Amino acid sequence: MPSGEEMGKEDFDRVFCPRGVAVVGASSHPSKFGFIFYYGLKSSGAPVYPVNSREGEVLGDRAYPTVDAIPHPVDYAVISIPASSVPKVIEDCGRKGVKAVSIYAAGYGEEGTEEGRRRERELAETARRSGVRVIGPNCIGVYCPKGRLSFFAGLPLLEGDVAFLSQSGGHAEEFAYKAENWGIGFSKIVSFGNSCDVTCEELLEYLEEDPETRIIGIYVEGSRNGRRFFEVLRRTAAKKPVVVWKGGETEAGAKAVASHTGFVSGSAQVWRAAVRQAGAIPVEDFEEMADVISALRLLPLPRGRRVAVVGAGGGAGVASTDACERNGLKVAPLQEETVEKLRKVVPSPGTSVRNPVDLSYFVLFDFSLMEECVRILAADPGVDMLIAHVSHLDMMMKALSGPEEEVLRVLARVREDMRAFPEKPLAVVLALESDFEVQRRKVEVRERLVKSGMCVFPTTARAARALSHLAFLREVRERRARGGASPGS
Amino acid sequence: MPSGEEMGKEDFDRVFCPRGVAVVGASSHPSKFGFIFYYGLKSSGAPVYPVNSREGEVLGDRAYPTVDAIPHPVDYAVISIPASSVPKVIEDCGRKGVKAVSIYAAGYGEEGTEEGRRRERELAETARRSGVRVIGPNCIGVYCPKGRLSFFAGLPLLEGDVAFLSQSGGHAEEFAYKAENWGIGFSKIVSFGNSCDVTCEELLEYLEEDPETRIIGIYVEGSRNGRRFFEVLRRTAAKKPVVVWKGGETEAGAKAVASHTGFVSGSAQVWRAAVRQAGAIPVEDFEEMADVISALRLLPLPRGRRVAVVGAGGGAGVASTDACERNGLKVAPLQEETVEKLRKVVPSPGTSVRNPVDLSYFVLFDFSLMEECVRILAADPGVDMLIAHVSHLDMMMKALSGPEEEVLRVLARVREDMRAFPEKPLAVVLALESDFEVQRRKVEVRERLVKSGMCVFPTTARAARALSHLAFLREVRERRARGGASPGS
Repeated sequence: MPSGEEMGKEDFDRVFCPRGVAVVGASSHPSKFGFIFYYGLKSSGAPVYPVNSREGEVLGDRAYPTVDAIPHPVDYAVISIPASSVPKVIEDCGRKGVKAVSIYAAGYGEEGTEEGRRRERELAETARRSGVRVIGPNCIGVYCPKGRLSFFAGLPLLEGDVAFLSQSGGHAEEFAYKAENWGIGFSKIVSFGNSCDVTCEELLEYLEEDPETRIIGIYVEGSRNGRRFFEVLRRTAAKKPVVVWKGGETEAGAKAVASHTGFVSGSAQVWRAAVRQAGAIPVEDFEEMADVISALRLLPLPRGRRVAVVGAGGGAGVASTDACERNGLKVAPLQEETVEKLRKVVPSPGTSVRNPVDLSYFVLFDFSLMEECVRILAADPGVDMLIAHVSHLDMMMKALSGPEEEVLRVLARVREDMRAFPEKPLAVVLALESDFEVQRRKVEVRERLVKSGMCVFPTTARAARALSHLAFLREVRERRARGGASPGS
Repeated sequence: MPSGEEMGKEDFDRVFCPRGVAVVGASSHPSKFGFIFYYGLKSSGAPVYPVNSREGEVLGDRAYPTVDAIPHPVDYAVISIPASSVPKVIEDCGRKGVKAVSIYAAGYGEEGTEEGRRRERELAETARRSGVRVIGPNCIGVYCPKGRLSFFAGLPLLEGDVAFLSQSGGHAEEFAYKAENWGIGFSKIVSFGNSCDVTCEELLEYLEEDPETRIIGIYVEGSRNGRRFFEVLRRTAAKKPVVVWKGGETEAGAKAVASHTGFVSGSAQVWRAAVRQAGAIPVEDFEEMADVISALRLLPLPRGRRVAVVGAGGGAGVASTDACERNGLKVAPLQEETVEKLRKVVPSPGTSVRNPVDLSYFVLFDFSLMEECVRILAADPGVDMLIAHVSHLDMMMKALSGPEEEVLRVLARVREDMRAFPEKPLAVVLALESDFEVQRRKVEVRERLVKSGMCVFPTTARAARALSHLAFLREVRERRARGGASPGS
């Protein structure tokens, strides 16, 4: 039941970059959530005020008995008190001119009881009456590096062009904690929980117009108004890539959703088809979402699904082929000219100049073969995308002294070379699962590659899955440009 | 075309723990494969002799012009010279009493030419005539920590109870390089390539009786004698767990196989069904193989597929449920008694004492909740297996000082507690993909967990997939015990 009063773009802007934030229930007791939220916002540098009628001071800051007693502008409030006391606080917020509040408390619609549903209705009504919008309940609110809004102390504040709307608070913070692994930064993250008032659709409409947001990820467990959700999704996806992770795709998952946010979850097939129809990208788990968002940030959309793979090892070539084909890519047959050019640079025997190109152990002695092959493969008009599989780094690290620098130098040249092919995405595959000494060194290599703007995956299967989504998005756009419908499932 | 003369168990034993190894084509030139193999075996401490008619010394060791000129017993030879010179060397080996040789050279049947096939037939005939068995060609031979046989210098020599037969040399060494990540050690690894003489079936028969091998992994691209392969597989799988990774499951993958080892690859569905019929475990990639082998080593086989999950976060619970159900597990409904017991230890609000159990942020302040819940869940007769998801380690590492020690202490107690439930496997889920500082610290945590004998997975999906294979194996065994056929696909 969305509120009758829609929040305008300016109001949302205020919430994300507030002049003041009240934490209602703020506390100095480290085991209270009111402590966690207050300490988190204070540490991240937000202009934050504690509200607590029983503690006069919170972490050395003067506490106010009510929100409307704060003698500064307050645009956003985090409410961390029991559900029964929330309506009164919302009325205070209304008087204070607070634009929106987020409510941590659970015990609403997700309980599945008449009492819980009644409480949620009452919350929405109080909000409407008070002119305050409610995010949640059963959520952790808003994260916005630009506005210095963090969920928790110590959470990296990574500014960037990705927005994430999450019905789960856990997934919301998880993405913020882990994003650096993919080189992802955020314009804003909203944990919207039960969405009794501010809905996912409304937030999506805001992001559609938000100049700071280039790519949108959504974790959703269900929608009370599926028709509107998919309408907004379709409109937004026409402007910006949108990735949709639907929780509760399985039957038991749907039951888990019912007790988590109280939503009725549709069937997986129907959802996926509808997401694709809307021109958005359906994913099935956290890793797939982060992978594809990273690919959307760093790589161009390919003209087709024909992939060239370069790596070392015939078995690795077979495995890469299986991984690509299982994920909807086609291992490209190479033009004879390409094969001839490869034959000139790839030593023999034991190698292959067919796709997947197999450099065998020669890659150990001369990693720059990787670059030469990528350049040749990228120039083949029958190749739409590339995977460079750094498959023998374990061996190099054990056999050579510090091969990392040469590997990084060559891959930096590969990155530069690919500028000449602005429609061909290149994914680097670097498996981390090695012996622990090598694993630590590989984390460094991954870090440096990611920070240099390369798109790195731990397996060929995950690279292929992300590339396949890029190809899908291009197909959607071309169909749209021709005035056709989006492809279905 | 397997050789008429089968190698006896004692002959194989000699090859794996040889009194002497000749490296034919051994060289002091670091870019030659003869150097790589010789240096590798010398570094690993094998009793190795260089054979080179042009270099008088190799790495400071006296080189012999031919194998039969070596004045010491030689049981195994690694041949790294062009294909055309190989037959003469095999005759020398025959005179010397060498039991088996492995041939690195490619250029045989996998070429797809009549010449290549002729060369491979000739090789098999020379071997038969000379009384020498041939492993390969197009392979990297034998790895056996106990016999000090390594593929390459610097490759960890991890002794253990797992054997791996691999048609791909790359996958053979890859597993040895990476095995520590899973706590896996090896009785032996054989890279058998084109298997013109010694076949996968024959090696499998040897491993069936090998007291040092408890679990067998196979990477196979095809078999020349499918009937016999599945017969041996069925017999072996009745004694020891066998995991089969079939390369070339997709149509394009099958083409890649043809050019890699020259095998004709069957359809994925047929292979998988046949592997399952044989009571072995089909997997689709390297990670799945390593995961399930690790689970087979460390965990008991569950009585059923009903899983209990404990972690933090409602969204994580939904995601875990989806992951378990997608992989053929059932998220167990808990007995009311279990729920009551959980209610006594799990604080509220915002948590869930239904399955998946959600400890929410309380797990931050008291990680031992994890142990208490595992103990209660494991005691539920409706629970066959458990997943302990350490989902909030990122947050703990950012917010608390050094939470690793407490996490490791609690998980060590969990491991001990599980001894009381000898039929209930417990998988730990610890995602590594975090910001890079946390990632490095998590590698340490994983290392310590793995070294303490816990079975750790990077995602719930991978844990569920491995647990599902354990359940399958128990089903196979129970059906066998009742005298029934193995379940199909």
